[in-house]
Amino acid sequence: MNTDYNSYFEKMQKIADVEHAIAVLNWDKEVNAPPKSNELRARQVATLSGIAHELMTDDQFGIQLEQLKKQDHTLDKHQLKNIELTLKQFHKTKKLSKAFVERKSKVTSKTYDAWIKARAAKDYSVYMPHLKEIFAIKREEAELKGYNDHPYNALLDDYEPGYTAAQLDTLFEDVKKQLVDFAAEIRQKQQVNDSFLYKFYAKDQQWDFGLKLLKNMGYDFDTGRQDISTHPFTTSFGPSDVRVTTRIDEHNFSDMVWSCIHEGGHALYEQGLRLDQYGLPMARSISLGIHESQSRLWENNVGRSLSYWKAHYGSLQETFPANLKNVDLMDFYRGINKIEPSFIRTEADEIHYHFHVLIRYELEKALLEGSIQVEDLENQWNEKYRAYLGVEVRDPNQGILQDIHWAFGLIGYFPTYSLGSFYAAQFFEQAKKDIPGLIQQIEEGDNKALLKWLRDNIHVHGQFYTADELCKNITGESLNFEYFMNYAKDKYADIYSK
Amino acid sequence: MNTDYNSYFEKMQKIADVEHAIAVLNWDKEVNAPPKSNELRARQVATLSGIAHELMTDDQFGIQLEQLKKQDHTLDKHQLKNIELTLKQFHKTKKLSKAFVERKSKVTSKTYDAWIKARAAKDYSVYMPHLKEIFAIKREEAELKGYNDHPYNALLDDYEPGYTAAQLDTLFEDVKKQLVDFAAEIRQKQQVNDSFLYKFYAKDQQWDFGLKLLKNMGYDFDTGRQDISTHPFTTSFGPSDVRVTTRIDEHNFSDMVWSCIHEGGHALYEQGLRLDQYGLPMARSISLGIHESQSRLWENNVGRSLSYWKAHYGSLQETFPANLKNVDLMDFYRGINKIEPSFIRTEADEIHYHFHVLIRYELEKALLEGSIQVEDLENQWNEKYRAYLGVEVRDPNQGILQDIHWAFGLIGYFPTYSLGSFYAAQFFEQAKKDIPGLIQQIEEGDNKALLKWLRDNIHVHGQFYTADELCKNITGESLNFEYFMNYAKDKYADIYSK
Repeated sequence: MNTDYNSYFEKMQKIADVEHAIAVLNWDKEVNAPPKSNELRARQVATLSGIAHELMTDDQFGIQLEQLKKQDHTLDKHQLKNIELTLKQFHKTKKLSKAFVERKSKVTSKTYDAWIKARAAKDYSVYMPHLKEIFAIKREEAELKGYNDHPYNALLDDYEPGYTAAQLDTLFEDVKKQLVDFAAEIRQKQQVNDSFLYKFYAKDQQWDFGLKLLKNMGYDFDTGRQDISTHPFTTSFGPSDVRVTTRIDEHNFSDMVWSCIHEGGHALYEQGLRLDQYGLPMARSISLGIHESQSRLWENNVGRSLSYWKAHYGSLQETFPANLKNVDLMDFYRGINKIEPSFIRTEADEIHYHFHVLIRYELEKALLEGSIQVEDLENQWNEKYRAYLGVEVRDPNQGILQDIHWAFGLIGYFPTYSLGSFYAAQFFEQAKKDIPGLIQQIEEGDNKALLKWLRDNIHVHGQFYTADELCKNITGESLNFEYFMNYAKDKYADIYSK
Repeated sequence: MNTDYNSYFEKMQKIADVEHAIAVLNWDKEVNAPPKSNELRARQVATLSGIAHELMTDDQFGIQLEQLKKQDHTLDKHQLKNIELTLKQFHKTKKLSKAFVERKSKVTSKTYDAWIKARAAKDYSVYMPHLKEIFAIKREEAELKGYNDHPYNALLDDYEPGYTAAQLDTLFEDVKKQLVDFAAEIRQKQQVNDSFLYKFYAKDQQWDFGLKLLKNMGYDFDTGRQDISTHPFTTSFGPSDVRVTTRIDEHNFSDMVWSCIHEGGHALYEQGLRLDQYGLPMARSISLGIHESQSRLWENNVGRSLSYWKAHYGSLQETFPANLKNVDLMDFYRGINKIEPSFIRTEADEIHYHFHVLIRYELEKALLEGSIQVEDLENQWNEKYRAYLGVEVRDPNQGILQDIHWAFGLIGYFPTYSLGSFYAAQFFEQAKKDIPGLIQQIEEGDNKALLKWLRDNIHVHGQFYTADELCKNITGESLNFEYFMNYAKDKYADIYSK
């Protein structure tokens, strides 16, 4: 038995190699794979996942970690944190037996198929019995993992370590108290015009414009590339190969632009992780909420700001003169920030978005604790959309069947989207304080100081701090919804002034 | 210990999954990878290679194989052949220790770097000391593996199982006796005109035309795709995902067309392997020589024939009217079959090609046995080019530094290119006998019967037969150079008639 830290490091790099190989296989599946290749690819991914799981749950590895932990006088603080976090991961992974993981994999695979069929039939009842199995097995998973207070915490911990349902309850109380009224107020105002976004925008020009924005953000094409996929995503094969995808709708210009900026934000985080700590917690992102804060900060706080478009609107008008020559900068700015309740989460504006998340959070928590039943979920869903968004769901594909997450067993995942926006508002407010002239730089198309600030304050630390510690270090306090609320009030007072 | 055949099958599928994941990572490296991603990708590939090697050399697996071999009454002939071939592979792999494999990997990696530098400096001496290490370690490998008669046989067996240096000597004697004179004779004839190939052929139209040819051959885009890479290649991630690459030179039309057809031929072999035997020898190609026979048959016997272009030249003329409207079919046919000695193997015509291979075979065999030295290799190389091709090498990049193979440790590999051409001629002659009206079908652009013949006679068998058995089954005799010679005589008598 080698108890040396280097041997631990090598083992972690080996696991990371396998995990990144899986990421390559999955990226390729979404971006390139020919139609009939899915079955073999799925088994190749499953085999590599099994190998990664075996490496991570090897008993000898556990003993090695425990011994290393005792050598704390020989290790520096980053090394100690690596060991501590890996031990946590080791014990967590060990709690789920191979048989359980395989059973869960089968359930999710069947549920995914059912979701596809249910959408084709526009019929929740096709999906329902399988979704019931998902919630049952996720409840079982929570019991296996153990938790305080609420089974939701066991699942949330996978995506947002250290955060709890009680904290989410408090947060979403604020959302309900402040954001519901705020949205209602805006709905009374005169609506802005965004019809120019739905003219014909040729694919190639959109593509080139998106690449320009990515470059301008600081995304490094020497360690990344962009491709087309059905759903935009970011994936990392290590900090020297971080890829983004986008999609292009020639009749909806916003689809490409803000997915580009959003994924670019995720990618900058991954490209900013430490290469010398490859494979270790110090080179991994903290949580989905913090990850999402990076994408949302760029997408919304920067990418939907007037300052940003002062820098880029001229070039956009030149690229699409027929569509935009009669739309001035303020009209463009108002149009891209239109607030309007709708059915689909992924198409929601940055205010209503959080009601979509809130609904999912309330439902998945209630399903887990058994206070509502999967059989009644569609009714519950539609009821909540009526209550929070004032819309009447008539097509389940625009309602309960719109998201794939639950079919994949991702319970406790949705709230991290809102956390991301709220962290983003709080971080961006601090960045404005820390960086003299930040807004003017953004107006001039210069994002270098902002990126350096994100690198220095967030990216470089990997998992050394928890999300909460990081937030306190940067802003002096824990996550505080007021920052988002103030951001929204300031911004939309200008946009909806009439 | 599970001695059951199914457990063996599962293990082989697992190994295949890892191997195909490596293939995906390598394909992605050539086709997509951003400039700075090489180092991490190399370590990810190395880790997966190590895992595949561990799985293959596991002692328990060896015991399981030996026990299965004894259960021969319960296994059918294909199952028995799978076990027998896997055992051979197992014992072969076991002969090289992990330490040796790692050492070899380091030597090849350093030699590859030296090759790159040597080409940049146009200086063989930069490459030489590393190439010396390569030949030393390959000699060591031959000793570890064991061999009869000549160390070359130990290395050749990796690429052309069962074939020997003695057989290659006989074959290349024929090449020297017959092909040298034949080429010399042609050089006395009036040269054909191929200048039309070097006009401007726009990239997009070339790409589309190449896809049309691939489809027409029967390449299945539901289980494959084509991309661009620096050097065209074919790779398989299993029979339901077999990819080809090509390259396009807008000032050399032949580069794209015949690389497309060549790689298409390789790919048809891989797409024709049995999916139900995935992971087993019955779903693997026999040898590089047989693989190359598939690419060369399509590239040369079909793709450079008059019949083939009777079917496709009209469409080609329509695609590039400015370049080809004044070039009639016979002129085109003569031009694409121009015979001319040159420096570069990969650009050689189908006659001189074999002198390039012969030279490499003579040199690597002599280096292995120590009858010449690496220090003197450049002189030897240039001397042989003078003797066999009548050309004077002045730039080492056009000479000794042109191929990457030796830098990668691929010794014993080159001859399989010639074997491929010779098998192709023999197989195609038989196909003409077996398929009534084959030539007319090709003239009509209908390749279905030919593909079916290749599928039934070659692809579907995997490794059930050795190359020699297969050749005898199909043509009634072992590989016989006369078929190639007759093909060449017939064809070039028409082309060089003046």
